[in-house]
Amino acid sequence: MNNLEMSVNVAINNWQQQVNAFNSVLDKLSTDDLLQEVAPNRNRGIYLLGHLVAVHDAMLPLLRFEEALYPELRPVFIEAADKTTETLPPAEQLKSQWNEVNNKLLAHYNALPADEWFTRHGSISEENFAHEPQRNRLNVLLSRTNHLSYHRGQLAFLLKKNQD
Amino acid sequence: MNNLEMSVNVAINNWQQQVNAFNSVLDKLSTDDLLQEVAPNRNRGIYLLGHLVAVHDAMLPLLRFEEALYPELRPVFIEAADKTTETLPPAEQLKSQWNEVNNKLLAHYNALPADEWFTRHGSISEENFAHEPQRNRLNVLLSRTNHLSYHRGQLAFLLKKNQD
Repeated sequence: MNNLEMSVNVAINNWQQQVNAFNSVLDKLSTDDLLQEVAPNRNRGIYLLGHLVAVHDAMLPLLRFEEALYPELRPVFIEAADKTTETLPPAEQLKSQWNEVNNKLLAHYNALPADEWFTRHGSISEENFAHEPQRNRLNVLLSRTNHLSYHRGQLAFLLKKNQD
Repeated sequence: MNNLEMSVNVAINNWQQQVNAFNSVLDKLSTDDLLQEVAPNRNRGIYLLGHLVAVHDAMLPLLRFEEALYPELRPVFIEAADKTTETLPPAEQLKSQWNEVNNKLLAHYNALPADEWFTRHGSISEENFAHEPQRNRLNVLLSRTNHLSYHRGQLAFLLKKNQD
């Protein structure tokens, strides 16, 4: 493996470690736990889960892999704030969608040649990308990995003190 | 800039974005705010700040740049949990150390040739690194960026709802 391949490899592994760490928190939470706010007047666990499914699902087109699988989650979990939508999908459904989307992403990551990570992401035109070459797919991978860590730090507050 | 340099560039920018985002939260918090727990029975803001200073300071030797500047923070903010140490350093001191350590790191990052990011980090021997080439300096940069995001997600709970 050359250094360029290693850079992509490190980024993908870093992503997967964060997904695994998130799943390890999720596995310890009951459906009732997920219906609680992670801190007073903050998002509920189920909203954070749905938000992450919707954001990761949107990575499929953003990374130019394929269409989003669950675009109906966007208005509920990205455009709307928590506790403003009448009913949310059940936690079990969101968990299954979460695994589905992450499995799809990982398969795409592993199939993408290293050089392709430095091509434009799906929200920038070829013309603008020529001036802003940092807006590439690797950048999306790194920033979404951080986004996941950010919310994992919050979801972890639903764990009992002896679970975390 | 070739793709290898771009991979390092994206990683450094991602780090800096997270530092900036953290500072933007920190700037909105008073010293009194920092003395509050971020959620019931969880760490106080000042502990998270001190923890991040200590972890980033330890990156200086971990990335084989130089000795830690403030090793005295380690027992208080890494080895000890919050609310187990009699007195903590004042918030103003920690903020100044935070900026100092991050400025040092960034200067080192920018001076390190791209290929050097794929050499071993300071906690693995040459011998073991030959078998585990992923344990390189780039990996440390990415995982510490995620660590920062994780705790920023928690510190943000000290913001009033109209500040975040």
